[in-house]
Amino acid sequence: MKTDLKFIEGGITTPLGFKAAAIRAGIKESRKRNDLSLIVSDVPATVAGTFTSNRVKAPPVKLCERNLIWGQAQAIIINAGCANACTGEQGFQDAERMAELTATTLNIGKNLVFVCSTGTIGIPLPMNKIESALPSLAQALSTSGGAAVAEAILTTDLVKKEVAVALTIDGKQVTIAGIAKGSGMIAPNLATMLSFITTDAAVDQRAMQDCLRHAMDHSFNRIIVDGDESTNDTVLMMANGAAGTDLLQKKHPDWKKFCLAVETVCHELAIKVVKDGEGATKFITVTVTGAVTRHDAQVAARAIAQSSLVKTAWYGSDPNWGRLMCAIGYSGARIEESRINITFDDVCAVQGGKAARGSSLKALEQVYAKKEFTVTVDLQSGKADHTIYTCDLSKEYVAINAEYMS
Amino acid sequence: MKTDLKFIEGGITTPLGFKAAAIRAGIKESRKRNDLSLIVSDVPATVAGTFTSNRVKAPPVKLCERNLIWGQAQAIIINAGCANACTGEQGFQDAERMAELTATTLNIGKNLVFVCSTGTIGIPLPMNKIESALPSLAQALSTSGGAAVAEAILTTDLVKKEVAVALTIDGKQVTIAGIAKGSGMIAPNLATMLSFITTDAAVDQRAMQDCLRHAMDHSFNRIIVDGDESTNDTVLMMANGAAGTDLLQKKHPDWKKFCLAVETVCHELAIKVVKDGEGATKFITVTVTGAVTRHDAQVAARAIAQSSLVKTAWYGSDPNWGRLMCAIGYSGARIEESRINITFDDVCAVQGGKAARGSSLKALEQVYAKKEFTVTVDLQSGKADHTIYTCDLSKEYVAINAEYMS
Repeated sequence: MKTDLKFIEGGITTPLGFKAAAIRAGIKESRKRNDLSLIVSDVPATVAGTFTSNRVKAPPVKLCERNLIWGQAQAIIINAGCANACTGEQGFQDAERMAELTATTLNIGKNLVFVCSTGTIGIPLPMNKIESALPSLAQALSTSGGAAVAEAILTTDLVKKEVAVALTIDGKQVTIAGIAKGSGMIAPNLATMLSFITTDAAVDQRAMQDCLRHAMDHSFNRIIVDGDESTNDTVLMMANGAAGTDLLQKKHPDWKKFCLAVETVCHELAIKVVKDGEGATKFITVTVTGAVTRHDAQVAARAIAQSSLVKTAWYGSDPNWGRLMCAIGYSGARIEESRINITFDDVCAVQGGKAARGSSLKALEQVYAKKEFTVTVDLQSGKADHTIYTCDLSKEYVAINAEYMS
Repeated sequence: MKTDLKFIEGGITTPLGFKAAAIRAGIKESRKRNDLSLIVSDVPATVAGTFTSNRVKAPPVKLCERNLIWGQAQAIIINAGCANACTGEQGFQDAERMAELTATTLNIGKNLVFVCSTGTIGIPLPMNKIESALPSLAQALSTSGGAAVAEAILTTDLVKKEVAVALTIDGKQVTIAGIAKGSGMIAPNLATMLSFITTDAAVDQRAMQDCLRHAMDHSFNRIIVDGDESTNDTVLMMANGAAGTDLLQKKHPDWKKFCLAVETVCHELAIKVVKDGEGATKFITVTVTGAVTRHDAQVAARAIAQSSLVKTAWYGSDPNWGRLMCAIGYSGARIEESRINITFDDVCAVQGGKAARGSSLKALEQVYAKKEFTVTVDLQSGKADHTIYTCDLSKEYVAINAEYMS
């Protein structure tokens, strides 16, 4: 598709009509960074959202799901350091109160406030700290506050993740931007991941919900760090119309162009999440082709990306391709062992289910030694394919996760 | 059930009428230990077997599955250092030839020879080395050779795994013994695991197959190290009747007693495999009770035991129970978050889906600091339960698996 989409410097306050701010409320004693963030649209915006499929759902996720029914949002309040998950009835009351306090401070309706929490599970929110910090937080709102929020939502992440694109939609200059956090507990169907996307286009709610869901399927639902799906995963998108476009919907001539731009933003953010995976030293793209169905391609790609044995071999630059064959074998995908080909970048290692004739261990070792490479598995059994973006499993991953709570 | 079962010193050559030996054939250059083993019964024995469910199956596994149809075995030839998996048509020819060479050397029928391989995937067997070593191996067969075989089948294992029990069956003294190897790639439905069980009882083939399958469900199918199911997993059991019992079958008054003894041997071996898990520093028993169905209990217990986040927290003695809640939530088990209770040994950490009232972090830390403890999850939703035996995920696991091939 033809598009004039350009990546630009900026973040969630680059689209017109959005302000943001972050502050240190002291939610987790040991955390020395900002931990409370606010994103506000000048006017009520159309909102879309996707949430974790985990059956243990944090109260703020349930609050967002409920408010999404109304289709509009004007503010998102986000805390790091405490997930407000597995906190029982108190957790729901706290999430509600966080929305109410924000609504009062901003003088807007409380159903327009969405709440997100990330951090340790099982610990109640220190509501007094949030309450005390809110007035200063609102005071600090500015059109240049996006980067501070991108920083303040991080937990074990090492780098902030911001993307912004500009393009012409409906004859107007439109900006779409996003931020994300997430580094461990990263699995398809979201993760300990929060992502917020803003745009100054005007968008129909139902169309935007479909657009966001489609973008998820091609971005955040294709990444694996450790395969653990979290209790708090939330992606929220706000469109406030400040760019002056007509209301975008599926029949609009620029609709596909707009959706592709949203997908691009989500995809870039997803890649940034994997590259910042806990302890990750390598970025690997796993593509399974020639599968009987998309489901077969998916389970095979995920089994590879989730195998501790495969991931440690990547970490150790040990070209032990047998572990990939093994993972494909137990994945549940319908396969014929003797048809499987596996290529690492452009080095064919496996042909017809066994070591490729004349394949050079040295060439394979050179690919394995790279910081980024592609694994392509051709099952030669059908026409479906799927791609997963993943990373290796390092000693640092274990070190980080052995001592997170304390 | 009343039983006079006693654990005794010994291994697979403790039951009457079995001989064994191990030798260094030099199958893998870097391996300085014995790598070729032979277990032989004086007379053709009844054989039962269970095999990997991986769709990528090593040629020796397929050979064993085929020979099992005849119901009898007299010899098992086992090599370590090379899995003869993903080796294509050559792999099948090599497995066949290994059986033929053994049959010729022992002067028995080739369908009475079972073949097992373990080690690196994707490398052809050095058949000339096996052929040269076979005569000396057969020469070395002795009734005290069991321990040498228990050693020679190991790969990344640190300790040999041998169990022997004695009991009265049909008025006769009967011995059942087993050995196992396996340390990484350990998941339910077998693993990179080989296990060999011998008994001098006389047993009906079909009954023994059922007995072994049942024993598997309560032992090897309940252990997880890393969740990777391998291409070579094989358990073989031989019963040669040398103790002089009548042919045991399901109607025999001592049948249940016999089966329980087989289960005991398998269970002990399975526990030894987990305790010797790659890099394992802790042994954890995960029991899920109160599930709607056995399947719900199973998937919840496995999700916990397979979560990298849960396992690294165990390693770090970090009582982050939220990660267990998270794993239960994404396991697929039908749960009601607010009903879940979690107890570590006798310390209740979670009650009704949230931190137990008055639960002491110090008491929980004391359990987490132990080398062995029990996690009990009560879903309070039904009557089904399931238990998994597992270990932690340590930096040593990563180190071992980052450098296995080279």
